[in-house]
This record gives sequence, C-alpha cells and structure tokens, in this order.
Amino acid sequence: MGSAPFSSSADQLSTLLAAEPSGPSIKTAIPGPKAQAVAKDLDEVFDTRALNMVADYRQSHGNYIVDPDNNALLDVYAQIASIPVGYNNPALLAAAQSEDMAQALINRPALGNFPSVEWASILRTGLLKVAPPGMNQVFTALAGSDANETAYKAAFMWRRQKERGGPSVEFTEEEMNSCMTNALPGAPNLSILSFKSAFHGRLFGSLSTTRSKPIHKLDIPAFDWPRATFPQLKYPLEEHAEENAKAEAASLAEVEDLILNFHAPPAAVIVEPIQSEGGDNHASPAFFRGLREVTAKHGVLFIVDEVQTGVGATGKFWAHEHWNLPTPPDMVTFSKKAQTAGYYFGNPELRPNKPYRQFNTWMGDPARAILFRSIIKYIEKNDLVAQTARVGDYLFGKLEALAAKYPGQFDNLRGKGQGTFIAFDNPKRDAFLAKAKTFGVNIGGSGVSAVRLRPMLIFQEKHADILVEALEKVVNAL
Amino acid sequence: MGSAPFSSSADQLSTLLAAEPSGPSIKTAIPGPKAQAVAKDLDEVFDTRALNMVADYRQSHGNYIVDPDNNALLDVYAQIASIPVGYNNPALLAAAQSEDMAQALINRPALGNFPSVEWASILRTGLLKVAPPGMNQVFTALAGSDANETAYKAAFMWRRQKERGGPSVEFTEEEMNSCMTNALPGAPNLSILSFKSAFHGRLFGSLSTTRSKPIHKLDIPAFDWPRATFPQLKYPLEEHAEENAKAEAASLAEVEDLILNFHAPPAAVIVEPIQSEGGDNHASPAFFRGLREVTAKHGVLFIVDEVQTGVGATGKFWAHEHWNLPTPPDMVTFSKKAQTAGYYFGNPELRPNKPYRQFNTWMGDPARAILFRSIIKYIEKNDLVAQTARVGDYLFGKLEALAAKYPGQFDNLRGKGQGTFIAFDNPKRDAFLAKAKTFGVNIGGSGVSAVRLRPMLIFQEKHADILVEALEKVVNAL
Repeated sequence: MGSAPFSSSADQLSTLLAAEPSGPSIKTAIPGPKAQAVAKDLDEVFDTRALNMVADYRQSHGNYIVDPDNNALLDVYAQIASIPVGYNNPALLAAAQSEDMAQALINRPALGNFPSVEWASILRTGLLKVAPPGMNQVFTALAGSDANETAYKAAFMWRRQKERGGPSVEFTEEEMNSCMTNALPGAPNLSILSFKSAFHGRLFGSLSTTRSKPIHKLDIPAFDWPRATFPQLKYPLEEHAEENAKAEAASLAEVEDLILNFHAPPAAVIVEPIQSEGGDNHASPAFFRGLREVTAKHGVLFIVDEVQTGVGATGKFWAHEHWNLPTPPDMVTFSKKAQTAGYYFGNPELRPNKPYRQFNTWMGDPARAILFRSIIKYIEKNDLVAQTARVGDYLFGKLEALAAKYPGQFDNLRGKGQGTFIAFDNPKRDAFLAKAKTFGVNIGGSGVSAVRLRPMLIFQEKHADILVEALEKVVNAL
Repeated sequence: MGSAPFSSSADQLSTLLAAEPSGPSIKTAIPGPKAQAVAKDLDEVFDTRALNMVADYRQSHGNYIVDPDNNALLDVYAQIASIPVGYNNPALLAAAQSEDMAQALINRPALGNFPSVEWASILRTGLLKVAPPGMNQVFTALAGSDANETAYKAAFMWRRQKERGGPSVEFTEEEMNSCMTNALPGAPNLSILSFKSAFHGRLFGSLSTTRSKPIHKLDIPAFDWPRATFPQLKYPLEEHAEENAKAEAASLAEVEDLILNFHAPPAAVIVEPIQSEGGDNHASPAFFRGLREVTAKHGVLFIVDEVQTGVGATGKFWAHEHWNLPTPPDMVTFSKKAQTAGYYFGNPELRPNKPYRQFNTWMGDPARAILFRSIIKYIEKNDLVAQTARVGDYLFGKLEALAAKYPGQFDNLRGKGQGTFIAFDNPKRDAFLAKAKTFGVNIGGSGVSAVRLRPMLIFQEKHADILVEALEKVVNAL
C-alpha cells in the first residue's frame, strides 16, 4: 500500500477537522462504568495511580479525546503536550502504513554501527529540515531524559577536552584508571547548572538538574550540582517592568557567581524557554540573551531544553527563536511533539574526539524519526506554526477578558505572543481541572497552582471559543 | 489489511529461511564503493566513526545482512545482539502493518496518565506472557539504560521506605526540602553495587554501575558507588573446578563486605548473567544462587540485567532460569531482542508508595510492545528457544574441535550449555573480526580479546556449519 492514494486529502487539515465531533459530549461521570472496569483490570499489571483518563484512541479524532464510555472531550493537554497534529491524523496514518515505516520497525538497526542506506536521507528530509538556525548536526535519542543526558555528556567531554588542551591530547593512565572507580580525575568534578523549578527529566543525571517538586526527587541519589534562581516575573508584565528586570538581573548575577565559584564548575547551563512542569514560568528574551552572553563569556555551554516548548506550540517552531540571540545556543534538546528525541548542535567540537564515547546500541529509533518527518511535512503544508501564533493571540485576548470578568480566577495570565502556550493560576486548581472534565475539556496543571494550556497545533479559533466557554462554566461552578 | 492473509506461511520459520541466500556472497572489499559513498554522505550530519557496515535492510533476509554493494554476510552480531528473529521476518512485517501498530504509532499515549483501552491486553498477551517465574508486574521503558535506571529508582524508594518504617510513613519537611538541593537526607547516600567489567548502560546512573572500558566512562561525572570483583573463571572449567569455586567464594565475600561496610550502602546488587560488553565473562549457577542468598540476607535487592542475555539466546527464555534460584530475583531488566525495554518484578512493595514517583511522559512505547508480542508469538510457534539450545550445543561441539585443531586461536571457549551465547578469545581479535567479513561473516567483539557470537534465534545447524568453516579460514589467513 503506501500513502499515495490518500495523500491529497490526508494532508489537508480540513480532512482531519471534518472527522471531529462538533463539540464536547459528556454522557457519564468520568470515569464512567466502562473506564472504571478498564482501569481495574489494568491495575493488576500496571500502576494506575497516576491515571487521569482511560482513552479509546480509535474513536478519538483531531482535538478530541474519547473515552470508553463515549465521552468526547476537547483535549488541550494532548498527552502532556506531546500530540502534535491531532488524534488519528490521516497523514500520519499513511506514514505509519508506509513501507519505510515497516522497514524501520522490523529491521531496527544499531545506528552507530550499522546505519541503513536511508538514514542520512531520513535525517535530511526530516529532523534536519527543522534544525534550529546555526545547527546542522543531530544526535538522536529516545525520550526527553536521554536527550538531555546525552547533551550533558557531550558538554562534559567538550569541557575536559578544552582543559586537556584539545582533541589530540591523549587521556592519561591516571584518568583511565580512576574513571573505572568513578573517581577523580577520570570522573571529573564538573556539573550542569539548572534553575529552581526546572524540569529536565527523571533519570539520574537529568533528575539532578530537575528542581520541580519533591515527589519527583525524593529518595533518589543526586549529584551535588548548582541551582540558580529562575526570575519570578509579576503580572501583568507592563505594570511590573522595573521589578521584573531587576529579578532577571539578579538571576543572571547568580548564574555568573555559580559559574565562577561553585565547587563543581558547570560545564553547561540548561534552561527551558518556558519552565513547564515547574508552573509555566516565563522570562524575557533579554534574560535569555543574558544567559547566552554570560555562558559564552566564561566558556560554559548553553543548552536550551525545548522538550516541551519545541515544535510550534509557542508560535515559532522553536521557542528560543523568540529571543533574537546574537549566537545560537550550543545545543537544543527535543522530544514530545517530535515523537522522537535528541539534541541538535552546530559546533563540530561537540563531537567527542574518539568514536564510542557518545554511543549506545540503538541511538534513537528510525521509525519515530520517520513519523516526525511526516509531522514536519504536515505542519508545513498546513502552515500550522503561523496558525498557532494566530490562534494563540485570539485565545489570549479571550482569556484576558475572562480574567477581567472573574478577578482572582485567572491570575498571572501568561504566554502573550507565545502561541497557545498559555497558563494562568487558579486558587482551586485541582478542583478546576476536575470540573473542566464535566464540561467536556481535558486540561492539565503544572507547578502548584497553574492551569496550563497545551493544545495541539491543529487548534483553531472555534476550539478556542469552546475552551473559553467551558472555562467560564468551570469558574461559575466552583 | 492486517496479518490474516499471510499468517499461516508468514509464521513459519521455513518461509523466512527460504528467502535467505544459500550462503555468504562477497563481491567487493567492505566497505565497497557504494557503501563508502553512503558513509561519506552520512558523516556530514551524523557521527560515523563507529561505523561497522552500512546496510541495505530491504535486501537483508533472515540471518543475512546485505550491504549497498550487494555483499551478503551471515550476521552473527545481529545489531549488537538485538535482532531476535531475522531481517525482514514476514510475521513481524504483518504485525508492523497491522491496525494495532498504526494506532500505536500515530496516537502515542502518556501511558501513566492516559492508557488506552488496549494496554492491559497488549501487556498480558505480550510482555507478561514471558515474565520470568515469580513476576507479574512490568514497568515499561525505552532502552536498556532507562530500564536499569528506573529499576535503580524503584530500589532506592523501596529501601528508604523500609528505613522510614513503611509505605504510610510520610516524608519529613527536611527530606522534602533537602531533596530539592540534591542533599541529604532527601537525596540519600545510597548506592547500587555492580561488578568489575559490568555493562549496564551509559546514562548517568547506569554508567556509574558500568565498569567495562575507560572509553565508556571518561570525563563523565559518576556516583561514588561500590564495585566488586567478578569471578574470573579459568577454562576448560572441568580442569579448574577448585580454583574457580575459590574465585567465586572470594567474590561473594567481597560483595557481602561491601554491603556491610561501603560508606554508601547498596540498595541493590545488579549483575548480568553473562557479562557481555565486558568480555563474555561467565560464572556458575552456584555463584548466582550465592548472590541471591547474600542479598536476601542483608535486605538488599537483587537485580538481574538481562538486556543482552534475555529472549532466548542462552537456550532458556531468560538466562537466569539456568540457575535454579530458590527465590526469584527482585527485578529483571530487558531490552535489545525484546525491541522494547523495561523491568519485571513481583513484589508489590516495589511499586512506590505514591503515584508520580516512578513516572515519565511516555513510560515505554506501545508500538514496540506490540512488536515484541509478535516476536514472542513467533518464537513460541517455531519453538526457537529449544532450537537455540540445540543449535548452540551443535555449534559448541564444532568449536571445541576447532579449538583443539588450532591451539591459541580459540582460547577460553565458553558458553557451553548456554545456547548460541558463545565466545572465545583470539590474540589478534580486531584483525580476526575484520578478516571474517572477507569470508562473509559479520561478527562482533567484546572486552579486550573476545570474539562474541550473537546469532539470532533463527540460526540453525546449516548456519553453524557456514560459520565454523569461515572461522577456520580466518585463522588460516591471519
């Protein structure tokens, strides 16, 4: 088979939107009886205590998620911000049913050792087409955590190479012996600097840089790495410009102090363009330009974690494109909406000086890289980044009006000019999210009190209207 | 479409073997001109310094890997031991083209929050059908590294819960505050004990337990965790029984000493049934029973890393089934031939006391779990574990004869009774591997001087004959 017979209509957003219900439809309490039975059965073999909703994905289309009791909800959480172009997207279905995909699934290569004849083309026509400006290399991984951890490894190897005097300087016997016992100097006393409330993943290196919530970190050994204060902006921004600029300057000064004085020197600073799990915390483009400057000044790498912000949701393909940086970040990590993961870079010195230093068996998954390629194509054909910028502005305006009408219910509304990557605080956040389901909207939270909106890139004005109407019902019902 | 029309012949091993060439066929030097062009092009965007062979997977069938210059090699390396049932297996192709697969690819859920109605069934009819004895739970992951790291996290949480006095004892304020700065007591001073030459992955926690080679570890910060000596057996085993038993007893004593006295107490001991990357190092079932005993005695968890040994290659589905353990391991990790990853466990106390402690966005990949289900079915239908045990014995006998004929060329032949998971040492190992390609066989190395054989589960006596013939040519040509 293959995609050809369906390609013209499958590639059009209108086809997918035509398959959506006209609006949410709630038939039972959530979970209803069928969802409860599924959850009970699943719990015998799989931890279901974090269960939010059981889903029937075969019945879900576009922006709507459907559960086994046939409740259809407008989904602005989208699998924790990781569904890019809607459920059962026909263009993705064609890619999934292509011969390329079948090959990638059944003949999974060890990419570093035995790449396929197609791998360069899959990268060039997919992942690399959307490489951030200034970047022409990619190291592929499987999820956000290992994307960040492999970027950290690249940073440590780069730093030690510089300290050693370049790529041609050989390792000493002492380095080779000591690294085998996890000791100095082979295992160096270096660090990655991250920010309070940051989230960069949950494996041991990434979790050492994650500072979101105790429940993420308790009982897990962690590296003694430095943590800087992320500026806490006050809203509305126009009324707090001076205060906010001061907070950002203080944060930059703290970063510089930690770079110079922390007992385990940072090889890199990692930052999210918008702290997502940590509560949708924003900072200004000037702040991020300052980070680029202070890291460059001291020979520290600057890693931008675009795992949640990447792939269009902020109205640019990469959120850091909002910053007008004088020079690109050193590495940009991605996952979630890309449906694959890894990091981009431009500087060839970030390729370690010898093979097998940055290596693992699979080094990513061509099947997921092929899917991302179809996502990129779909985004481009339907101009979905521009649409998201436009719909985000529309939605933000509606939310401003709601916030004015219901003081204290839509606090610290943020994300203006950042596409649909919008959030606000509500004093009864958890009840707010639960109530939203009863009005047919699936929404997620972040941090302590944030309601975070993470629509897909196929979210349009008509969906924004449905969302805003439901939000008003929620505050009236609470 | 779906698998129905092809299932009867697609499911039969004979169908796949009929698509194989009758033997290796070498037409050019490797790499030939086409492979060189592909590699040069790929290097512009992807690090190719670890490249072993470029492959044309569309032309590869069964046990044979084919390169762009149309060289066909018998592949006993199999993507670093990760191809289970041959290239272009028609049964896997049917699974890849099924509606279940398309759904899993295009509607990827955040499994912990929004599992599909099918997820329990995918687990029960797949992953859990082959759960090791005594285990009825699985935590799914994406690769061997995160399989091990999530198992480590489960071990740390379990240990601290026990120290705290049970699942209902709440965290203290001090624990919750200190974990946010990666400090005691919230980030505990606990460890994972591993063995010299072990390989458990390359992210920060797993790499701290990996002790294979400096090139894997240099310049990467690591936890100060304990390392015990892995017994170094002498061959042939029959002639060194007493010495080997002494080495194993000494290793067990060292493990017990580290459990009792290491400054960061181990929450778990992790071991590979056969140290693979480290050089194909074996130990006796009695040694592993001793590890089970000493860990149980001191309240330390026993994790068996079956990432490379699992899924049939040793002539049992799980290599630790060779040991006749009195009680099961606490956790068993898997990846590679499973084409997905994770860890099995049986004890419900290994589910952390609260949700979101062991959690991430995707928590595995249903698409890869569906593929593993088709692999399991194929293995069962064709009785491939028993075949691998039988063919392994056949191959081992042939290699014993070669070793006798060519003293010093097939040293420390090991893996008797372990299916096709066989290795030997050769003094010119790297030249040996390179030369093997010229005789049409793709083989991998491990450790410093080991030639490791990792055929697929569809490897039969006729393939063993071809392999042995080629090996003899290699030693004669060196």
